[in-house]
Amino acid sequence: MKRYVVAVVGATGLVGREVLNVLEQRRFPLRKLIPLATQESVGAIIEFAGEPYIVNRLEKDAFENVNFAIFAASCEASADYAKVAAKAGAIVIDNSSHFRMAPDVPLIVPEINATAARDHKGIIANPNCSTIQLLMALYPLDARFGIQRAVVSTYQSVSGSGKKALDELADQSLAMLSLKEPTVEAYPHRIGFNLLPHIGDFDDDGYSEEETKLRRETAKILGRNDIFISPTCVRAPVFNCHCQSLNQ
Amino acid sequence: MKRYVVAVVGATGLVGREVLNVLEQRRFPLRKLIPLATQESVGAIIEFAGEPYIVNRLEKDAFENVNFAIFAASCEASADYAKVAAKAGAIVIDNSSHFRMAPDVPLIVPEINATAARDHKGIIANPNCSTIQLLMALYPLDARFGIQRAVVSTYQSVSGSGKKALDELADQSLAMLSLKEPTVEAYPHRIGFNLLPHIGDFDDDGYSEEETKLRRETAKILGRNDIFISPTCVRAPVFNCHCQSLNQ
Repeated sequence: MKRYVVAVVGATGLVGREVLNVLEQRRFPLRKLIPLATQESVGAIIEFAGEPYIVNRLEKDAFENVNFAIFAASCEASADYAKVAAKAGAIVIDNSSHFRMAPDVPLIVPEINATAARDHKGIIANPNCSTIQLLMALYPLDARFGIQRAVVSTYQSVSGSGKKALDELADQSLAMLSLKEPTVEAYPHRIGFNLLPHIGDFDDDGYSEEETKLRRETAKILGRNDIFISPTCVRAPVFNCHCQSLNQ
Repeated sequence: MKRYVVAVVGATGLVGREVLNVLEQRRFPLRKLIPLATQESVGAIIEFAGEPYIVNRLEKDAFENVNFAIFAASCEASADYAKVAAKAGAIVIDNSSHFRMAPDVPLIVPEINATAARDHKGIIANPNCSTIQLLMALYPLDARFGIQRAVVSTYQSVSGSGKKALDELADQSLAMLSLKEPTVEAYPHRIGFNLLPHIGDFDDDGYSEEETKLRRETAKILGRNDIFISPTCVRAPVFNCHCQSLNQ
């Protein structure tokens, strides 16, 4: 069986760790694993399949001989390094939103439009988490009946915002349970025991970035501009139990 | 100015305390206030407008000479005592769901159908909290354009379930932040850092009681059976800051 060199950018983040879990669970045919990170996590030791790995610095020459580079970090990291990785010969699978709407980048939900990935020019984008869940339900309905419009409300976990927000949820919850004033940094408002219909900045038309992503990505993946999506995206003070526990 | 004798049933509960706050803030012309409760709160001292009041027992002869009896307790309390109060001459304003769909009981949102209250036969019902908020938005739209259908998603606070659930949210949150197993009693599942699309029991058609209330109460208040409401009611681990703080 052919084996591959895989780089994971953001290997110590919430999503990066989940990527490593999946690679391990599925026994992905690895020849070599290269965990990469920016700044503070460089030099950290992570475990994969029972072996320790040192986290390397994300830099331009980190992608030599890499077959697949999975980006699970910020938009900035993808903007700065995805094309570098692709130029070095890697197929980039990008979890950030940076390339999703780029015309020459396929936006893929494997169960829906896997074959479109073949047209990649070095970068394949992964949709927003809400888009994926939505389309897993809408796609078969659309294929069978033809959807004209969908009214969508989301209830999104704090784990989707990464570790800093998750820590802040824990800190704010503890503060409020102790009748202390919570500190607000990760979101524009308190998330502890609260709901925020505000994910990303608001556009001029009153929709939040998350809501706009849902609409645009749906159109691109289904190849249809005539489905009217009316989204309301809400951040809720919940976390996915698959993640590490709060405060760990 | 005419002054009235007002009994508040469930005076020590979350809703009862809010009723007392509103009576005080609005300087309701009271001749006498009679706080009533079942069982454990009888004999408790509450404060109203700076004066102490002893909570009396909810019993059949508690409504002599009462002008208004505001029920802010359980469906059982309303089922057992609302008609008794009405027979004694009081006008009952019932916050429970017990009489809402009874044909001879007006279901009132003052901003929408206040005049229907005049047809009361001793009992006036107050709609579900979600129905009120929904109709405050739908009513003017319906009056102007005529609504045919509405897709409604709710994000409902734990404070709506009363003090026991609020305490359980605090206890479960603390347990989870301490990496302990949370105890589940108030709801069918854990609410701490979780969302439950399950408010009340499920009907045979798959809707929860809360969702069915939204549909039926909307039809009754607007006097229309031809609006199609598609509701999704979700309990969220949040609380209304107007309530007492958690764990108090």
